[in-house]
Parts: sequence; structure tokens; C-alpha cells
Amino acid sequence: MEGSAFMGKGIKFSDKISSLKPSATLEITSKAKAMVKAGEDVVILAAGEPDFDTPESIKNAAIEAMKRGETKYTPASGKLSLKKVIAEKLKRDNGLEYAPGQIVVSSGAKHSIYNALQVLCNPGDEVIVVPPYWLSYPAMVMLAGGKPVEVKTSASQGFKVSPEDIQKAATEKTKAIILNSPSNPAGAVYDEKELAAIAEICLAKGIVIISDEIYEKIMFDGKKHFSIASVSPEVRDATVLVNGVSKSYSMTGWRIGYIAAPPALAALVSNFQSQTTSNPCSISQAAAEYAMTDEKLENELDKNCEVYQQRRDIMLGLFSGQEKIIPFKPQGAFYMFCDISPTGMRSKEFAEKLLAEKKVAVIPGEPFGADNCVRLSFASDLETIKKGVGRILQWVEGM
Amino acid sequence: MEGSAFMGKGIKFSDKISSLKPSATLEITSKAKAMVKAGEDVVILAAGEPDFDTPESIKNAAIEAMKRGETKYTPASGKLSLKKVIAEKLKRDNGLEYAPGQIVVSSGAKHSIYNALQVLCNPGDEVIVVPPYWLSYPAMVMLAGGKPVEVKTSASQGFKVSPEDIQKAATEKTKAIILNSPSNPAGAVYDEKELAAIAEICLAKGIVIISDEIYEKIMFDGKKHFSIASVSPEVRDATVLVNGVSKSYSMTGWRIGYIAAPPALAALVSNFQSQTTSNPCSISQAAAEYAMTDEKLENELDKNCEVYQQRRDIMLGLFSGQEKIIPFKPQGAFYMFCDISPTGMRSKEFAEKLLAEKKVAVIPGEPFGADNCVRLSFASDLETIKKGVGRILQWVEGM
Repeated sequence: MEGSAFMGKGIKFSDKISSLKPSATLEITSKAKAMVKAGEDVVILAAGEPDFDTPESIKNAAIEAMKRGETKYTPASGKLSLKKVIAEKLKRDNGLEYAPGQIVVSSGAKHSIYNALQVLCNPGDEVIVVPPYWLSYPAMVMLAGGKPVEVKTSASQGFKVSPEDIQKAATEKTKAIILNSPSNPAGAVYDEKELAAIAEICLAKGIVIISDEIYEKIMFDGKKHFSIASVSPEVRDATVLVNGVSKSYSMTGWRIGYIAAPPALAALVSNFQSQTTSNPCSISQAAAEYAMTDEKLENELDKNCEVYQQRRDIMLGLFSGQEKIIPFKPQGAFYMFCDISPTGMRSKEFAEKLLAEKKVAVIPGEPFGADNCVRLSFASDLETIKKGVGRILQWVEGM
Repeated sequence: MEGSAFMGKGIKFSDKISSLKPSATLEITSKAKAMVKAGEDVVILAAGEPDFDTPESIKNAAIEAMKRGETKYTPASGKLSLKKVIAEKLKRDNGLEYAPGQIVVSSGAKHSIYNALQVLCNPGDEVIVVPPYWLSYPAMVMLAGGKPVEVKTSASQGFKVSPEDIQKAATEKTKAIILNSPSNPAGAVYDEKELAAIAEICLAKGIVIISDEIYEKIMFDGKKHFSIASVSPEVRDATVLVNGVSKSYSMTGWRIGYIAAPPALAALVSNFQSQTTSNPCSISQAAAEYAMTDEKLENELDKNCEVYQQRRDIMLGLFSGQEKIIPFKPQGAFYMFCDISPTGMRSKEFAEKLLAEKKVAVIPGEPFGADNCVRLSFASDLETIKKGVGRILQWVEGM
């Protein structure tokens, strides 16, 4: 059109968002899925969600809610009845006292963390992230105008950050730290003593703790999850506890996460959410409320954990007796993070070549802040796991 | 705890979010609901959503999706099958050609607008908003680092912005304009000629058009919606069309909105969404996909429109023959925006006193940028409407 000021130059976009990297996870996964669609025999060890379906009784609760007409707006921060159930869960499972007003329900735990960072960060604030971290953490810190500060860990220290390293990294500008236990991608689990020591430093330095506990219910070897917020009431009041139903109850598609936080912070998150997304899906809220109240479901979760643990052990066993790929034994979640340094490849090269040459999809460690590693998922059946790892070993042994 | 740096001073929050006003709409509504709960005979004319339930057939489609196991992650920007159905809808209803890759499905149209503004705005960019506007527009512009610039309208010009006024308000920094037809709160509807003239100015000035068309299917007097994107392919390529299923299909709780936009913009919104919320609820996506494909539902929507129009006409009739409250006749949506200047009150005072003295809940116009008005909703049954307006008239006549 004549006179269009867009002619030739197009629309200028936000610098912040233009510099956001597309998710490398999705890139490999969608390439693999396209290959499957084209009829190729691809083994996908890349899943970031349980391979179990949502339990039947939860689906029925959602159907009942629909029939009752729960198809309308709820309060932006979630229904009061759901917040009460979450408060009871935090009391029951984690020994934590929260009023319902301290809880904000969002459209998934990712959304919860994004909202919390938006409320916490002013431009230039620093937020400590601990590689190997879940890849959206640094992106979300930057989107909040903050600066992600990496405090490295290694397999020899169990991929866990030490209080000393936090102390060294802390500056006047450190606003928060993001912890994740059990962790994605390493399956690292912090124990009570480690968390108490970290909490002490955070309190001393005035660092808010964002504690992502989404994998709480997927733990192995009889270990139980410990929430850093339960170290003491003072620590609780400096913590944004993040959790949800996605991983525990195999409800990733439903999009229900939540925070439990100091009242002023929860109020701001709620206000922010009311202006940006409104309530999470009303039907999903009803389903989540049911999930957290049916005691019988706990047995089902325990059984799922046993299945995951068996797969972990078998996968570990498959990797024994060779030195090209060094797996880290996870204590929770459903990933095996593997050091591939002996192959001489970087993670993206490894993942891309593996997919092209052996038709196995794994996730490169680079976006997790660990370019010497790849992430394998055991959220798939044993046959798939054996086939996939078999191909990987055949491939690296022939190098 | 000794040594806590939080002692006494608490956590410092984001300045941007701390300055966000809590929604005045919610304030009145929650006060009214509390009164109802306490057994008081309150008439609520404040609803921002249809009083009809989601059609049965849509619920059934959601149940089927659950049974098929559609409880998992979908692509962050929505399922391809849903995007195709949206593209077909835009072709069928609006004569618009979009590829599925130009569509991003989000958790409600509010979320769609928030995401689009995040992608469009750099700090200091100006975005034109047109009072009386939907109250979240200026808030979302500010959250994107932009500056909302108000271009006033009046009842005498049908609460519609003129191309001349846009031209006057445009500066080097004007990035976008947010249009809303049919509009909330005034029910103003722009016709093709008006939109073509606005589009011409926007193209000439390089102003991106964000067109919120969420009330598209709720129009009166036989009028049909016209999308500004359909003025010409050039205009389409400068437009972010926003729509969703919430208002048309009485699906507010489900949270499905979408944009159709130029490919580069859609790609950035999709990328942003993948890092901040992931996909909208998978079950809601299946329900929305069904809603937009069942032709029989169109009859139901037409019937709903007839009901809304009848209520509008009755409400207008009730206000005739008095001069304290001057209603604006809406051509779409389900609100009546009323000038209360003759009462000598400002909108918040009016709404608060009305609730306290006559137990009728209406929404003050102040957060919509029109402090001389209040918004009445006719998304409730006739009896409620008659009772509520009766009380209001009794109240103002006694002044």
C-alpha cells in the first residue's frame, strides 16, 4: 500500500524478547517427532513429562465440575477452596503453615516462577541460578529485567550448590536464588542439613529463596522430600515455594502450578496475574483440588515412583562397563544427566548427530548450562529405554 | 532469626508491579459477593461474562479429549489442529487468510494481548488507548515498559476514535494502538468505513494495530462484525488480531484466546510463551477446537444475541423518561455504559454509595478512563435487571 510506513522495514520488536533464545529442547523434540511422522524408527528419550496418563478419578472430578457449571471466571489467583486444599497439603506433606491468602494458583509452575520474578526484580537485580538448571530460569530472570548469575556445580558435588559458593557470589544486587530439588535435569536432591546451611546464608544476605519443588513426589531409594521453607518460620518468610500438580499427578497438560509466599508478595503476584492472564482454567482447578484430597491417589504415586526407580536402575546398569558416557545417578525426577566429555563432542553436536545417525532423541545440556552433558529421560517404557540406550552405546563404542 | 537481613525491612519488590493498581472492578464485585454471602439482598449488575453456561456439546468434546488422554503438553503456542481451525474461522467469518504458523493460542485473550505488547514494546514506546477502554489495556502497556497515550472520545461521537485524533496523537514513539470493537465498556462498534480510515493513518504512521475482537459474536440490530485486518492485506500485515472463545461460547473459565499476526511477530510471541507459561490447557484447547467447528452452535449464539438484545432494549426502556442517568445504547457486547454526571457524583463514589444504600453492584467508570460513567451489565436475567435498575432509579430520583 502506498504510504505505508512499514514498507521495507517491517515492525520493530522488543529487544529483550528478540534476544530470547528459542528452546533447544523443543528444537530437537520437534525434529524427532517429524521423523516419527515420516515413518522413521526414532527412539525418543527426550520427554519432559510423565508417560502415565492423568488418573481416572481426577478426570472424573473434572467432568463433575463441568457438569456443575464451573466454566466461569474464578478469582484471578485461584478458587479459595483450592487454596485451602493447597494450604492443607503444605501442612500435611511439608509441615508448613500458610494462610490461603499466601497462595496464588497460576497456569503451571513455570507461570508461577515467571510471575514471582516479575514481582521481585527491578532492573539490574541479580538472581543466582545453579547449573545444570532448568533452562527457563535464566530466560525468566532476564525477562524480569534481572541478571542471572551462575554458580557452578559439578557431578562430584552432586550437582548441588554449597553455601560457601552462594556467599562468594552474593553482591549488594543479589535479589534471589532459584533452587530446584529434586532437580531437572540432574535429579539432584538436597537434604535438610544442606538446605538449612543455604537458608542461613540467604537470610544473612537478604536473598529471597525461590524453591521449585515440582518433582517433590518423584523420589527414589526411600528418600523423602524436604522443603527449604520448613527450615524455620523465618526461612519460610523469605521463600517463594513453587509447586504444582503437573509432574506428581501426570497433569502436565492441565496447567496448574502455585506459589506459597509471604503475604505482601502473594498479593502482588495475584494483582499482576489479574492484569495479565486472569485465573488458571477453572476445570483444571477443580481437578487439582480433587487430586490433592484423594488419599488413595498417594498409593498410585508411590507405584509410579517404583516404576521410575526400576527404570533408573536398569538405565544405570546399561551404562555400566563403558567409559564414553558417564551417567549421574538421580535421586529424584525422571532424567539421567550424562557427561559426554569422553566422546569429545559438545552437547548440541552430540544430540544432533545421534538423532541423524542413530535415530535417538536426547536433550543437549547446553541450554541447561552444562555443554558437556546430555539429558536422557526415563519417562518412557523399558523397551524404549533399552532400545535407545543400546543404540547410543553402539554408536559411541564405534567411535 | 538472628542475622536475617530481612529483619525490619522486608523484601523489596519491583517498582513497576508495586505501582500497579488493584482492579477496581474486582473490589466492588468481591464486596458485593461478600454481602450476598452474608444473606443480604444484593443485585449484581457487574458481571463481565455471559450468564449462559458453556454449551453441552462443547463440554462433551472436552470429556472425549480427556478420555483420549489429551492431558499432556501440547506445543507452547497451541495444537496445530486448533490453529488450523482458527485459520478456517478467520477465513469463514472475516475473509482473512492466515497460515497456522501466524496463530498463537494463549490462556485467554488477556494473555494474548499481554504477550503481544511484551513482544512489541521497547521502553518508552507509546501505545494509543481509547477511553472508555477495557481497564487492563493501560496496565499491560505499562508492564511492557510502554507509555499508554489516551485519545479521548465522547458519547456524541459514539465513543469511537477518529483518524484525525489518532493523527494528532501520533509521535515518533507511537508503536501501536489498541482498538476494541464491539467495545467493553461502551458496546461501541466500528463500521468498515471508519476502520478503513483508521487503518490508513496507522499504515502511514507505522502504527501497529492491536484489534481486540473478543465480543465479535455478540452484536445487535442485525449488524455484523468487521475486522480491521480485512481492510487489505497490508493492513492485515500491520495488525495483531485478538480473539478467543470466552465471550462467544460462554467459555470464560476455560481460558482460550488467540492472536493472528504477521509471521515474525507470531514467532516471537510463541517463543516468549514457551519460556513463560507453556501451552494453554490441553483440554480447553480441544473444547475450543470443537466449538469453532460445530455449525449448530452458531444457532445457539444467534439465540443468545437475541436474548442480550432484548435485555438491552428493556434496560434502555427503563432508563427513559428521566435525566439523572444517561445510558449509551450499545451495539454489541453486554454492557450499558451510563453517564452519571447529572447526579454530581464521581464514578467510585456513585458505585460505593449505590452498593451501600441500595445494594446494587455496578462498575465505576474511573478505571475505564471515564470517571463520569458507570458500567451496568445485562449478562443476567430480566428479573435481576429490572430489580437493579428499579433500585437505581428510585435512588437517583430521591436525590
